[in-house]
Amino acid sequence: MATAADTHAMRRAVALAARGLGSTSPNPVVGCVITDASGRRVGEGFHQRAGGPHAEIHALREAGGHARGGTAYVTLEPCNHTGRTGPCAQALTEAGIARVVYAVADPNPQATGGADTLRAAGVQVERGLLEEEAEAGNTAWLTSVRLGRPYVVWKYAATLDGRVAAADGTSRWISSPESRADVHRLRAEADAVVVGSGTARADDPHLAVRGIDGATQPLRVVLDTEARAVRPGARVLDDAAPTLVAVAEDAETGLPGVLRLPRTGRGLSVPALLEALYARGVRSVLLEGGPTLAGSFVAAGAVDRVVGYLAPVLLGAGPTALAEAGITTITEALRLDVAESVRLGPDLRITATVPKGA
Amino acid sequence: MATAADTHAMRRAVALAARGLGSTSPNPVVGCVITDASGRRVGEGFHQRAGGPHAEIHALREAGGHARGGTAYVTLEPCNHTGRTGPCAQALTEAGIARVVYAVADPNPQATGGADTLRAAGVQVERGLLEEEAEAGNTAWLTSVRLGRPYVVWKYAATLDGRVAAADGTSRWISSPESRADVHRLRAEADAVVVGSGTARADDPHLAVRGIDGATQPLRVVLDTEARAVRPGARVLDDAAPTLVAVAEDAETGLPGVLRLPRTGRGLSVPALLEALYARGVRSVLLEGGPTLAGSFVAAGAVDRVVGYLAPVLLGAGPTALAEAGITTITEALRLDVAESVRLGPDLRITATVPKGA
Repeated sequence: MATAADTHAMRRAVALAARGLGSTSPNPVVGCVITDASGRRVGEGFHQRAGGPHAEIHALREAGGHARGGTAYVTLEPCNHTGRTGPCAQALTEAGIARVVYAVADPNPQATGGADTLRAAGVQVERGLLEEEAEAGNTAWLTSVRLGRPYVVWKYAATLDGRVAAADGTSRWISSPESRADVHRLRAEADAVVVGSGTARADDPHLAVRGIDGATQPLRVVLDTEARAVRPGARVLDDAAPTLVAVAEDAETGLPGVLRLPRTGRGLSVPALLEALYARGVRSVLLEGGPTLAGSFVAAGAVDRVVGYLAPVLLGAGPTALAEAGITTITEALRLDVAESVRLGPDLRITATVPKGA
Repeated sequence: MATAADTHAMRRAVALAARGLGSTSPNPVVGCVITDASGRRVGEGFHQRAGGPHAEIHALREAGGHARGGTAYVTLEPCNHTGRTGPCAQALTEAGIARVVYAVADPNPQATGGADTLRAAGVQVERGLLEEEAEAGNTAWLTSVRLGRPYVVWKYAATLDGRVAAADGTSRWISSPESRADVHRLRAEADAVVVGSGTARADDPHLAVRGIDGATQPLRVVLDTEARAVRPGARVLDDAAPTLVAVAEDAETGLPGVLRLPRTGRGLSVPALLEALYARGVRSVLLEGGPTLAGSFVAAGAVDRVVGYLAPVLLGAGPTALAEAGITTITEALRLDVAESVRLGPDLRITATVPKGA
């Protein structure tokens, strides 16, 4: 049975895990707290980047000899396999940990089995404490494992009447400085940021994270079907972050290292793009493109979460946040669940998610 | 100096006042609490309808002889004039009230002066307790007195991407049962509900209040420029509530009792409509029309508050909540303040107000 102290320790582990968002792919985020035999907290850690030590190893190092006879709280089932690092189940056993409490089972077939290994070694193992909170913190990774493609967050900024620009195309600034700063946090948590040729041409965006210390820069991805939007000297081609330009298989381009994708009726194939990104280790994508690209992703069933920055502004004309998504009648509408609604300066940030199974 | 007991009594008076919303026009809503000389609450009341007793009279009746030496808490300065009822300042004095605390001064030149009359009679008078809360409760009436036209609330229901219907025109139901029930509360609080010919033709709406016990039905107003949308047998012509059909000065119609208004480039003159409604005692209007009518009101500077029911739904096509409002570039956008954002079932209700002086 979990005590209040158990819950407290696991909540700390969940908070630690979140520090890894955006830098651990293709691995999940994981947090770990270790208490000694008397229940005193003696170590903690989180997975910081792929190839680096797992959360348990960081925590065991900090705990040292105090781990013997203690409890390890881990947000994800300790791994059982030897990848770039040794299996954590073994490290916990060797350190003399008497009890392991973990929140979420590892769905990765290569890594699962850690709980069984621990039990076989005589460790008391409990599963499921704060499972929902830990799952929420790992949504992107868990979804990507389940679907075999990156988790996609579509971000937009619009007026109350759904416009992303005025009739003459002007849009500076619809959303507030607070909202724009928040977008950098979303970028820092994502493995890749995606825009289309319309945005590339109109805004010459930079797409790197600014203003967040120690942030891991996302891969900047531009879908430039005809290879005409990203010109030499474009801001997205600087060295602030890696960049990938995707073009049609038959497009002519002088840019090196482009990703070639099949065309569809409406541009490049979204499933093919996501497959290619997944193969490169991208587990989460922030879609920052305009209405057309967002429409393509919605039409492809490739939006998992929507983050809308709504400014209390009315325009009555101008492009809307979402264009043609293949939905013609109300019964085909994409219905979401509101997960959160918060004020950001003068704006509202609304987060909505696609229901599981939808 | 106001004590905690004073604040408590005035808060109760503000809550009482709100019960009159939608039934007191052309009068304001007013609440009153009376305590005896020892501070015990002995009477309370609110203004229920124009022509009926003022809040103070209801409260004095309930207090009876206990009012002598006591305090009256009133949300609005007691009136000084003899209209359909006698002046409250005199009634309070005659009842032996020793102290009057009121929240907001009466801006109505016919009624003001009550505080002076009370002071001249030896009553201790204090102003300003919970002034902001009381003003907020009387916003519609106070704004209408200031502007000489009814206060206008524009209500819409849309998807996250700002659509009010799908591409094929279907829209049942974008918003939830909770949101649709809430609209009846808005109707009950309004003196008039206004739609345009597009809505009249497409939906044959009823526009009366349902599901709220004791609600005063609003005046149902249809702007039917060409006198072609409201046909005999239309639901809006039943006897559930009074109805006013406004048509162009030159329109041919067999309907009796229509309101004739001048045309503008985009339909009927909004200022002329509001002037006519004000002359009929309408102090607050709920605008339930479609995108075109909403655009006309925004263009006329005649929207004071926006209530948006946002459903977590994406469509990508279909009409938007607000059409052509004469805004062509971002610097001309109508900028509002978010007053409130609440969950209503699966939806969000966002209330935003036009900043004073905008």
